[in-house]
Amino acid sequence: METPSGVFKGILDRFQGITVESEHEYNATDDFPEKLKRSLDHWQRKQNRAIWFKVSEKHSNWIPALTKNGFQFHHARDGYLTLVRWLPENEYKNLPPCAHTMLGVGGLVVNKEREEILVVSDRYALIPNSWKLPGGFIEPKENLVESGIREVHEETGIETEYETMISIRHSHGGLFDTSDLYFVMALTPKNFNIKRDEREISKAKWMPFEEYLNHPNVHETNRHFLRIYLDYQKCGLCFVLKKAKHQILKKEYCLYFMKSISKESDEDEAVKEDTKNCDKK
Amino acid sequence: METPSGVFKGILDRFQGITVESEHEYNATDDFPEKLKRSLDHWQRKQNRAIWFKVSEKHSNWIPALTKNGFQFHHARDGYLTLVRWLPENEYKNLPPCAHTMLGVGGLVVNKEREEILVVSDRYALIPNSWKLPGGFIEPKENLVESGIREVHEETGIETEYETMISIRHSHGGLFDTSDLYFVMALTPKNFNIKRDEREISKAKWMPFEEYLNHPNVHETNRHFLRIYLDYQKCGLCFVLKKAKHQILKKEYCLYFMKSISKESDEDEAVKEDTKNCDKK
Repeated sequence: METPSGVFKGILDRFQGITVESEHEYNATDDFPEKLKRSLDHWQRKQNRAIWFKVSEKHSNWIPALTKNGFQFHHARDGYLTLVRWLPENEYKNLPPCAHTMLGVGGLVVNKEREEILVVSDRYALIPNSWKLPGGFIEPKENLVESGIREVHEETGIETEYETMISIRHSHGGLFDTSDLYFVMALTPKNFNIKRDEREISKAKWMPFEEYLNHPNVHETNRHFLRIYLDYQKCGLCFVLKKAKHQILKKEYCLYFMKSISKESDEDEAVKEDTKNCDKK
Repeated sequence: METPSGVFKGILDRFQGITVESEHEYNATDDFPEKLKRSLDHWQRKQNRAIWFKVSEKHSNWIPALTKNGFQFHHARDGYLTLVRWLPENEYKNLPPCAHTMLGVGGLVVNKEREEILVVSDRYALIPNSWKLPGGFIEPKENLVESGIREVHEETGIETEYETMISIRHSHGGLFDTSDLYFVMALTPKNFNIKRDEREISKAKWMPFEEYLNHPNVHETNRHFLRIYLDYQKCGLCFVLKKAKHQILKKEYCLYFMKSISKESDEDEAVKEDTKNCDKK
């Protein structure tokens, strides 16, 4: 697309939108508000739809002029704020929402022989002295299982491997008014001596199943995760993880789905391959 | 906490952080940069940790002075940009990440009698003329299942009810450099006459299982979801949804976990209650 001089150069997307990045277009000697008005006129004539401005922290003096010209905050991360203005006047505004959900993981680390699980008490707990599963927030670009294994190790020094996903909890109205998806997974411990992270964790220990299922300082929801896990064990259910590559986009992805790990299906090669890390009884 | 005059009033959190909202503290006659410096000195003396500024779009002229004073963009949504500065110099920066994952849903709408599923072709598809499951982004504060039912209805006019979750796909490097969690669920149709959304969907139809499993314009990943579903049917597996309330926080949440819906467990009242919308064979 030919861009006239005095108009911001942007990238055209398949929805007829334009994205301008301050990193490419910033010029301290420009009169930004003037150039923005000329650009908006141009894009309006060209019937462009959403106009996106990705503004770096160091170019934040662009932001007041953008909001004055009808741009709205869309999302911010990694040193950028992205603002958007929807140009079509007779078409409903059809934009993807920003990411609005925090992801967390909890590890149910099970010592099957002793019928114990690993529990911790947070230093900054909402309810002091409550026992919970080790876990925390998933970092950007981290896979669920790797996040669970990392959090358990950071908080307690216990190394683990994946056994099965147990449950997903979804709720709204959390931190920063986001929603919350919490993935609880069963992990098999490879060592048993706890070395807790003293900054975040005030107490950590192995607790017998029975005690955990009846402890007054364990939330009902957390107890429920152990009950679900024990039920899976009884029924031979496993939630497997399969890593694959998207046929067209060539992007790696993780696929989670359930399997019935019954005695008969132990013979089944396909199941065997999918459930490498699954407990087959 | 007593706040001296000339210092921003903020809310203290349990991590010794402070949150200042422009909606409460904005004053056009203030000298913002001066007041910010006085406030930072005060918070440093008080040993506060993270300082959060929640700045409304209409007060965006605060932003350049904040970035000049070491504040970083944390997240933006709903007309606000939140910036943060970590004060402790000898303690590692320990802040929750911003939401970095987009949530999507896909509905595998199954007409069991005719062995057909509902497929659509997107108007702005990445790969034109490919057939995919109806679906889209989850809106803020929407539940997964309600989102799936809404998207299928908007795109195709088909009303559905939840049968089971099928699979979760997780990948990185998507739109706005976010990650992507895609929840695929089986839905039971309540009507069969398609009324497609002409703005978003170029084609929609019922496609026989066999055709879908072999169609060159269906991605392998999408075909796999139908295979997983058929496997669940054969093994009597169901991923149920249970709504409950958090014991302490009194917040509603949705809990997803698997069940084996075998002939014997049909007698089991507990299972029956959990799987209201589940197909019991």
